[in-house]
Amino acid sequence: MTNNSPKRVSNGVDTKSKKILAAFKSQGARVETKGRAKLKSKKDFSLWYTPGVGVASLHLAKHPEDARKMSVKKNSVAVISDGSAVLGLGNIGPYGALPVMEGKALIFKEMAGVDAWPIVLDTQDPDEIVRTVKAIAPAFGGINLEDIASPKCFAIEKRLIEELDIPVMHDDQHGTAIVVLAGLMNAAKVVKKDMKKLKVVVSGAGAAGAATAKLLIAAGVRDIVLLDRTGTIYAARPGLNESKAELAALTNPRRVAGGLAEAMVGADAFIGLSGKGVLTAEHIKSMAPKSIVFAMANPEPEILPGEALRAGAAVIATGRSDFPNQINNSLVFPGIFRGALDKEVKKITEATKLRTARALAALVARPTAAKIIPDMLDPRVVKAVARAVH
Amino acid sequence: MTNNSPKRVSNGVDTKSKKILAAFKSQGARVETKGRAKLKSKKDFSLWYTPGVGVASLHLAKHPEDARKMSVKKNSVAVISDGSAVLGLGNIGPYGALPVMEGKALIFKEMAGVDAWPIVLDTQDPDEIVRTVKAIAPAFGGINLEDIASPKCFAIEKRLIEELDIPVMHDDQHGTAIVVLAGLMNAAKVVKKDMKKLKVVVSGAGAAGAATAKLLIAAGVRDIVLLDRTGTIYAARPGLNESKAELAALTNPRRVAGGLAEAMVGADAFIGLSGKGVLTAEHIKSMAPKSIVFAMANPEPEILPGEALRAGAAVIATGRSDFPNQINNSLVFPGIFRGALDKEVKKITEATKLRTARALAALVARPTAAKIIPDMLDPRVVKAVARAVH
Repeated sequence: MTNNSPKRVSNGVDTKSKKILAAFKSQGARVETKGRAKLKSKKDFSLWYTPGVGVASLHLAKHPEDARKMSVKKNSVAVISDGSAVLGLGNIGPYGALPVMEGKALIFKEMAGVDAWPIVLDTQDPDEIVRTVKAIAPAFGGINLEDIASPKCFAIEKRLIEELDIPVMHDDQHGTAIVVLAGLMNAAKVVKKDMKKLKVVVSGAGAAGAATAKLLIAAGVRDIVLLDRTGTIYAARPGLNESKAELAALTNPRRVAGGLAEAMVGADAFIGLSGKGVLTAEHIKSMAPKSIVFAMANPEPEILPGEALRAGAAVIATGRSDFPNQINNSLVFPGIFRGALDKEVKKITEATKLRTARALAALVARPTAAKIIPDMLDPRVVKAVARAVH
Repeated sequence: MTNNSPKRVSNGVDTKSKKILAAFKSQGARVETKGRAKLKSKKDFSLWYTPGVGVASLHLAKHPEDARKMSVKKNSVAVISDGSAVLGLGNIGPYGALPVMEGKALIFKEMAGVDAWPIVLDTQDPDEIVRTVKAIAPAFGGINLEDIASPKCFAIEKRLIEELDIPVMHDDQHGTAIVVLAGLMNAAKVVKKDMKKLKVVVSGAGAAGAATAKLLIAAGVRDIVLLDRTGTIYAARPGLNESKAELAALTNPRRVAGGLAEAMVGADAFIGLSGKGVLTAEHIKSMAPKSIVFAMANPEPEILPGEALRAGAAVIATGRSDFPNQINNSLVFPGIFRGALDKEVKKITEATKLRTARALAALVARPTAAKIIPDMLDPRVVKAVARAVH
């Protein structure tokens, strides 16, 4: 088995981790297939296999558009990763990515009835990724790209959207952006500020950070300072890649230079899409009153919720299931693809993303600091999101 | 949707075909996914998704070999075709292939509990096929190639077997060869002839014909005449491709030249892996007494069973579910992969194929003309085949 240069793999395995690992080992696979057609008699075989299947084959050869009506394409999504940016764990290769893709396939089915299959790629070359996804696309009704490093993820997604006639979405980008926007809409209500006037710091200019900044701008937010490992992004900064140069032109109207400490002074909201422990109590103390802190790095947030509250944050959220206000793209991707499959939508547009965020936010009738986003187990979520896709 | 140059697509759609098509349209997908892990509480999400999944990801990044124990790889097979040789219908492209791949995925699950997912390729280039299959291989426990045209199928399968560490089998070749050998073993018993001494005519030198000839030889059959569209294959015949030149060296010891009429004179067994209506009553009348006729073209056999019997055949078989003696690779592929997955077998060897054929034949304790092969619904089949894989 090839393992594309794993990096940043920790050696510390504590007791809790040992228990989790034991659970995964005893579980084996977390998704399986299930027959939807009966195969109990010779007659069943004659219909669903030979000779009957020949009729369906000849029909689809002439009318490929009917694959969406009479095959797995009707309800299937490939969850695809090359393992180049898995959670906040870095480039840990296809096998490192597999548990995440399989977990998403499980969520797809349990929450939205979507037949998703995990596919991890033994290549990290952008052209090869595009070629491979296009080659396997005919039997799928949608493509959920996942955990692919930036900046290559931008070009890969763009080409696939252009070249395929099924919806393609890099969930790290757009799932995250949508759920962050929904959370920020309600957090602004809680602190009684106008969302469009918030000073927002986005820590992390990777896939999620870039897409979030763009969607916030599309929603009317005007003052966003975006940071990567080097510091704040601004137009004159040397050595920006194409994606970051584009972001520099769209963000940082006050031309804030420096690092996170400089950016956080007077900020209304912090959106963490970076890494464990990036944010300190001092950063939060330097923010404007009634500050909003979304610490969404996975599996370890930028700051732990308790510490953020003690430092004075008014509204806090993470990406995790074991803290309140889980800003997690699981609130978005199942419904997005549910809607896209049902309505045979070919592209997930900017307008759809904005509608989806609003629909999600609206599910919390009276937002409070403890509840800015609907619960992942709220059965209204998938329906509301799916309805917003058209 | 791209549709790779469909050919030989008939325009005649009769009443029976209309009914079958309506059944496929009302059915939609024939396989779906199913969650195997519970996802009902926040705790479930914390374990199977974030943050728990990070532990599994880090572990598999370091120990990719454990993917066979704690992911879909444990029980999954990709059923892959480029649609270049679908059933006996020719090159009808990926969408034409999809109903067959999906039907196989259904059979895999219902008969052997294997989680197979249909994948059809939007490329027919051999190098691209190899690259694509290798790229998506990490999350699969096995690769079932299907309905890929010869001669390219031989090189594609060979490279994938060499370059991957999971079992790869082109079912048109080996599934067919194994089930034919099993059937021939029992048919020889019925007509009280020594199988090794049979004069065998194999009509069709494509994927199935070539592999069948080779496996019969491995089982000790010495007199095989193989025919393609041009006629009998023999060493001196001009213009043989690499695969056929290899077959010419292994077969046709009597150097029979000409067409099917010439080859059939005095033959003990006819094995049809060619096309509809190739065999006539006159051909059968020219065979040796107590002749064996396997007319296995799908969906339309080389000759209809009734006509073959009237012409004097002692034992007849087809590939179809709606006639007796169904010599169909559905008897083989589910058990082969069941056994390979359970025992983590990396290659399906020649010895395994011979053992499998013997195991299958042995399930019919007292073969008769009406029963030379076990029924596809016989629950012993998958177990016996799986047991033979090691």
